[in-house]
Amino acid sequence: MARYDRAITVFSPDGHLFQVEYALEAVRKGNAAVGVRGTDTIVLGVEKKSTVKLQDSRSVRKIVNLDDHIALACAGLKADARVLINRARIECQSHKLTVEDPVTVEYITRYIAGLQQKYTQSGGVRPFGLSTLIVGFDPHTGVPALYQTDPSGTFSAWKANATGRNSNSMREFLEKNYTETSGQETLKLAIRALLEVVESGGKNIEVAVMTRDKGLRQLDEAEIDTIVAEIEAEKEAAEAAKKGPFKET
Amino acid sequence: MARYDRAITVFSPDGHLFQVEYALEAVRKGNAAVGVRGTDTIVLGVEKKSTVKLQDSRSVRKIVNLDDHIALACAGLKADARVLINRARIECQSHKLTVEDPVTVEYITRYIAGLQQKYTQSGGVRPFGLSTLIVGFDPHTGVPALYQTDPSGTFSAWKANATGRNSNSMREFLEKNYTETSGQETLKLAIRALLEVVESGGKNIEVAVMTRDKGLRQLDEAEIDTIVAEIEAEKEAAEAAKKGPFKET
Amino acid sequence: MARYDRAITVFSPDGHLFQVEYALEAVRKGNAAVGVRGTDTIVLGVEKKSTVKLQDSRSVRKIVNLDDHIALACAGLKADARVLINRARIECQSHKLTVEDPVTVEYITRYIAGLQQKYTQSGGVRPFGLSTLIVGFDPHTGVPALYQTDPSGTFSAWKANATGRNSNSMREFLEKNYTETSGQETLKLAIRALLEVVESGGKNIEVAVMTRDKGLRQLDEAEIDTIVAEIEAEKEAAEAAKKGPFKET
Amino acid sequence: MARYDRAITVFSPDGHLFQVEYALEAVRKGNAAVGVRGTDTIVLGVEKKSTVKLQDSRSVRKIVNLDDHIALACAGLKADARVLINRARIECQSHKLTVEDPVTVEYITRYIAGLQQKYTQSGGVRPFGLSTLIVGFDPHTGVPALYQTDPSGTFSAWKANATGRNSNSMREFLEKNYTETSGQETLKLAIRALLEVVESGGKNIEVAVMTRDKGLRQLDEAEIDTIVAEIEAEKEAAEAAKKGPFKET
Amino acid sequence: MARYDRAITVFSPDGHLFQVEYALEAVRKGNAAVGVRGTDTIVLGVEKKSTVKLQDSRSVRKIVNLDDHIALACAGLKADARVLINRARIECQSHKLTVEDPVTVEYITRYIAGLQQKYTQSGGVRPFGLSTLIVGFDPHTGVPALYQTDPSGTFSAWKANATGRNSNSMREFLEKNYTETSGQETLKLAIRALLEVVESGGKNIEVAVMTRDKGLRQLDEAEIDTIVAEIEAEKEAAEAAKKGPFKET
Amino acid sequence: MARYDRAITVFSPDGHLFQVEYALEAVRKGNAAVGVRGTDTIVLGVEKKSTVKLQDSRSVRKIVNLDDHIALACAGLKADARVLINRARIECQSHKLTVEDPVTVEYITRYIAGLQQKYTQSGGVRPFGLSTLIVGFDPHTGVPALYQTDPSGTFSAWKANATGRNSNSMREFLEKNYTETSGQETLKLAIRALLEVVESGGKNIEVAVMTRDKGLRQLDEAEIDTIVAEIEAEKEAAEAAKKGPFKET
Amino acid sequence: MARYDRAITVFSPDGHLFQVEYALEAVRKGNAAVGVRGTDTIVLGVEKKSTVKLQDSRSVRKIVNLDDHIALACAGLKADARVLINRARIECQSHKLTVEDPVTVEYITRYIAGLQQKYTQSGGVRPFGLSTLIVGFDPHTGVPALYQTDPSGTFSAWKANATGRNSNSMREFLEKNYTETSGQETLKLAIRALLEVVESGGKNIEVAVMTRDKGLRQLDEAEIDTIVAEIEAEKEAAEAAKKGPFKET
Repeated sequence: MARYDRAITVFSPDGHLFQVEYALEAVRKGNAAVGVRGTDTIVLGVEKKSTVKLQDSRSVRKIVNLDDHIALACAGLKADARVLINRARIECQSHKLTVEDPVTVEYITRYIAGLQQKYTQSGGVRPFGLSTLIVGFDPHTGVPALYQTDPSGTFSAWKANATGRNSNSMREFLEKNYTETSGQETLKLAIRALLEVVESGGKNIEVAVMTRDKGLRQLDEAEIDTIVAEIEAEKEAAEAAKKGPFKET
Repeated sequence: MARYDRAITVFSPDGHLFQVEYALEAVRKGNAAVGVRGTDTIVLGVEKKSTVKLQDSRSVRKIVNLDDHIALACAGLKADARVLINRARIECQSHKLTVEDPVTVEYITRYIAGLQQKYTQSGGVRPFGLSTLIVGFDPHTGVPALYQTDPSGTFSAWKANATGRNSNSMREFLEKNYTETSGQETLKLAIRALLEVVESGGKNIEVAVMTRDKGLRQLDEAEIDTIVAEIEAEKEAAEAAKKGPFKET
Repeated sequence: MARYDRAITVFSPDGHLFQVEYALEAVRKGNAAVGVRGTDTIVLGVEKKSTVKLQDSRSVRKIVNLDDHIALACAGLKADARVLINRARIECQSHKLTVEDPVTVEYITRYIAGLQQKYTQSGGVRPFGLSTLIVGFDPHTGVPALYQTDPSGTFSAWKANATGRNSNSMREFLEKNYTETSGQETLKLAIRALLEVVESGGKNIEVAVMTRDKGLRQLDEAEIDTIVAEIEAEKEAAEAAKKGPFKET
Repeated sequence: MARYDRAITVFSPDGHLFQVEYALEAVRKGNAAVGVRGTDTIVLGVEKKSTVKLQDSRSVRKIVNLDDHIALACAGLKADARVLINRARIECQSHKLTVEDPVTVEYITRYIAGLQQKYTQSGGVRPFGLSTLIVGFDPHTGVPALYQTDPSGTFSAWKANATGRNSNSMREFLEKNYTETSGQETLKLAIRALLEVVESGGKNIEVAVMTRDKGLRQLDEAEIDTIVAEIEAEKEAAEAAKKGPFKET
Repeated sequence: MARYDRAITVFSPDGHLFQVEYALEAVRKGNAAVGVRGTDTIVLGVEKKSTVKLQDSRSVRKIVNLDDHIALACAGLKADARVLINRARIECQSHKLTVEDPVTVEYITRYIAGLQQKYTQSGGVRPFGLSTLIVGFDPHTGVPALYQTDPSGTFSAWKANATGRNSNSMREFLEKNYTETSGQETLKLAIRALLEVVESGGKNIEVAVMTRDKGLRQLDEAEIDTIVAEIEAEKEAAEAAKKGPFKET
Repeated sequence: MARYDRAITVFSPDGHLFQVEYALEAVRKGNAAVGVRGTDTIVLGVEKKSTVKLQDSRSVRKIVNLDDHIALACAGLKADARVLINRARIECQSHKLTVEDPVTVEYITRYIAGLQQKYTQSGGVRPFGLSTLIVGFDPHTGVPALYQTDPSGTFSAWKANATGRNSNSMREFLEKNYTETSGQETLKLAIRALLEVVESGGKNIEVAVMTRDKGLRQLDEAEIDTIVAEIEAEKEAAEAAKKGPFKET
Repeated sequence: MARYDRAITVFSPDGHLFQVEYALEAVRKGNAAVGVRGTDTIVLGVEKKSTVKLQDSRSVRKIVNLDDHIALACAGLKADARVLINRARIECQSHKLTVEDPVTVEYITRYIAGLQQKYTQSGGVRPFGLSTLIVGFDPHTGVPALYQTDPSGTFSAWKANATGRNSNSMREFLEKNYTETSGQETLKLAIRALLEVVESGGKNIEVAVMTRDKGLRQLDEAEIDTIVAEIEAEKEAAEAAKKGPFKET
């Protein structure tokens, strides 16, 4: 099997592109990331590396704007991410200049996935070690959207999805608990999904909320802590409720 | 044998291009797809991945327009498909602009198959992991057409054909049951072929109908369900008929 | 030996280009094709894949025009054939435009063989998996011509020749039975050669006749069936004749 | 494992880019380097090779200016460093000319990290065997910044950080002893970190101090010696204090 | 040894370019060819493949003109030959146009050998599998010339020489029997050399005679047969003479 | 280990670029070279191959001018040296023309080392098998400088240094005996260092002296012999002195 | 060791470029060549292949002019030689046109050696399998010069030197017998050196004499024979003299 896995231009006898699958493995080793689409709010959340005391709190954010109405979070090789983000931002500006209209979320998703595909078909390069979650509101209709792309260059639309480390656990959680939400409820659902796989709660996650009017807003640590506390209180209350008033022995 | 299968530019001693055959294997692992040409109606149907609750129902369609009068369905690597579709769409527009005439179905089929061939003869790339079904009405004569292309860049014209996962079963079904049809009957034949290989029926398939006047129309889930129900009813009736009125014991 | 056969740019110690020979193997696996040059008629015939009921009878012909007075049949990889045919057609048009004179059969044969040679001398490509039979009448003298090219880029002129699957049997038949013919007799000779290697007769062959005045004409199935029937009748008569009037026991 | 580590364009089955990791090994063999960000002062310190008597004291400095308000220290292949430094300096000048504004520290960090990433994705090159510490004051707000980049092209912001030989020991020291400092205290902290891993003290280190007003100033040997002496005196005093006035026996 | 013979850019430890030597092997497998320079006549002769009944007698000649006063015969890969011949003919025309003077035999020999050399020094190609005999009269002095080139790109001038299959036997014959000849005698010598290695005489050889005034003239089969008969008669006479008048027993 | 040493674009697992280290080995096999910087004089000396009687004494010098005020000596592959020297000389002229100012010694050293680095980072080339000693006076301040570059593209400034065969012995000698010198003393120190590793003294060495005013001056054999004799006399005297007047037994 | 010898871009661990050394082996297998520089005469001599009766005596000379005042002889691959000679001749003409001054011998030697070096540093080519002896008179000073270049691109100046087959024996002879000569004596010395390694004397050597006024003159066979005879007579006389008048027994 190993003989077919060392070049992007070689199919294995059963039709696999192993280098693309290995790039996905780099994604699976990256930070967890989650996206939840509400009716008026879209939330992106990512796991932060267990913070080092010396690291600058103003350090590079993992949730970034591509344009005023579009944001992206990703899992995988951070340096690869910057390349894709830069090119996507330029495309957003260039589109606005030439077409006099902001890009739609699907347009920029196609653009990013297209770049990723290119690196899977020609020799002399490697695929991007990167999956992305792209969110935004349609500049005309205001409809919220959440897309995911992966190293093969495939993309798909979601109500809620996760990628990176332990994305399966988060996705399972979302499948079980997803209902259409709005505002604060959307935010809570995203944070609850992240807490499924991130330990020591609020201080290891980064969360950003996008609304139709105000665009992307990064939550500060205090805000996150408040919500995490709320979530834990609700959880305890729920567990207590399950046990019932007189079940203590 | 393995020594001749790791580059597109190498024939094996018995004249095979293994990388092209491995790309076909990627097609065989892709979703099932079927196309049926009626006298006034052409139907494309594809298998949808067992739907995830969280995935957006507005997600990317697998049956797409290349031009108003031409549509395409495909099996294989989704990201590769987008590349071919984009280039075909641009060719359609460019042809219209320069020749002041829409492309014929055969013209755009030749164009797509030509792109696929190119990736089988020069080093440094891999073949497209993709087979396509291309349908449409001739812009002048209104004659319906259905073509198939494969990773080698070969194409051929069909009354009805299938590709992707279990395409052999579907093709056998079509060979046995094909008769020249029109309208609703063409649609039913295509869906019956898909149901041969897709489990749990209507919710896992995507169907689109093309007519001379109205172009491509994607069926919604309700429509598909109705037809699937009809088909099942007919089937039961047929089986009951086979048993005869008094065969119950 | 295997060490010298994986690149077009490598001679084996005994002066072979193995990749060219392997490409010839792809030709030997392709459909049978035959060409017979008469005094006023040239006939090309090819084997059709055992026809699938669903395949469109209007499907892509294997005998095609390069120009009004020149036609081509070939054996090998169909997708490769299209590339060569396209380029040859463009050369025909371009020649007419710049020199104000149609190409001769030899000119376009040299052009095609030249393309084939190019793919046997430079790295990063593979040879065309294709042999061609090129026929036509000289645009000035009206002299009929039949050429053959092969993957090495070699070409040669013939009175009658065959290529593809079982070409040796057909060539032996032609060597034994060839006499200078014209009109219907030329057509019959070509079909008899094909019937040597194609089973179930007329429905599995495609035949086209070129004359000085009318250019290329594809025979329809009925015409072919009639001739096949004639041939079989003559054969039986001949055999009966051999046995003589009283040899029955 | 070895099979996936000889090209920058090949992922290993578990998603690693081994060539990038080997380049990091070249960094780990390079001189130790440290950076500490104070409120009004940023300090860079690097280990000097045990000085050879014959080497010119005016020799090439390891702490260099990229622009008046930005400096860089690095660990790894010295010749690679020069390439990056040259290109960064040109970018600083070119930015000033075209935008009529000096670059920010983050801008030039992104530029350098971007160059480093490029050399990890395309064949025919190797990654830079280099990690950098980039420091400076924002040309508008005067806010101090310290960034680190590595061979993968990743970068991050820090209050204090170290790279090169024994960077782990220095980082541990900094984690334990870091407090927000200014002026001389910032300088002392940086030198104390270096002394953790560099033997025979002052004569084997090179230190530079950057302030908002005066830009980068390389300390001469005498200054360094004075501070090293102070540090050692304080250390002895501290140890003596620990033992207490009457603990001698 | 095998390790040095798979690329044109690799010398073997004892200074050989094996790929060039393997190309010479392709020449040694090609048809026999001979050239004899007389005082007023130059003769080129080549072996024809045992003629197939079906092959067109008007088929491609193996002895061709490069210009009115220069001709070429060759041994090796026929498709490679065409490439060299085409480029040489273009050079002849281009030289005439720009310098207003026809090329000399040496000039065009240098040009052809130069092309052959190029394909022995750069990667990504293979040498021409071809040796050539180039003959002609100097356009100014009328002096006859005969050159030979080989796959290495070496060339040399000869009074008479042979190449291709069994060239050693022919060359030995020529060494033994060469004397300066003219007219018919030159022609006879060339044919006698060919008959040394070609069986069944006249019908398997192609011969062309070049004179100062009339340029190249291909001999027809009858002419060749006449001379072959003469040669055989002379041979018998000579043998009879050797035995002497009374030696019959 | 061998698996990582056959391409300039591959790091070994412990961060080595083996091809650069092998190029250094070519330097270590080259002629010995030494440079000594005095206050008003800089001396370059190189070992000459044991002179062949037939070789032209006017043969190519190993110590060459790059510009009037800058000279270079080197060890390693002579043909590589010429390439670097040519490019450096052109850079000197081009700098003078465009900036209207001669280059500084550091500028041209950076230029040469930069060229050397380039050949260590991109595939398809090999590093220069060359170390250089570059000397000169600053065109403005008149300060003398001595730099060394090596195949990795690293450079450094020195008071005195050696490279090539046995450079370690020479460097040890210099470390022990170096003191700041001027004029004849600088010259003597350089020659004494060379004599440590070159046998049969003056006739096997080439020496050049550069002063601020007179630029580079190659010493003739007589001058060298005189100094060698002086050095030997001093050495004997010193040894005699060590023994003292009455130590003979 | 073998692992480092198959590409020009790979040093062996001990700093060798094996492909260059193998190219030298091709030189050592080439014809012997010798050059002797006299005060007013320079002589080049080369071994001719044991002459074949059929080869044209007017065949390609091995000693050629680069310009009126410069000539070249070489050993190694003849086809490679032509490439170098052509490029050198063009450089001579182009230099004359642009600088209005003929090239010096050193200039053209540097040019040729520079071309040879280029083919030792970049991938995708092989070194020239060629050593050259370049001679000439300085166009201004009239000083005679003799240079040698080899496949590595190294060159050096000589009073007399040899290359090719058995060059060591010739060089030993020259070392023993060289004295500064002029005119006929220079010629004799060169021929005597050649006769050391070439059997059957004059008919297997080619000799050319260059003088300041008359440029290059190829000696005809008679001239060479006369000198060879003289040399042999002198040799016999010398031997007789050694034995003395009465030593016969």
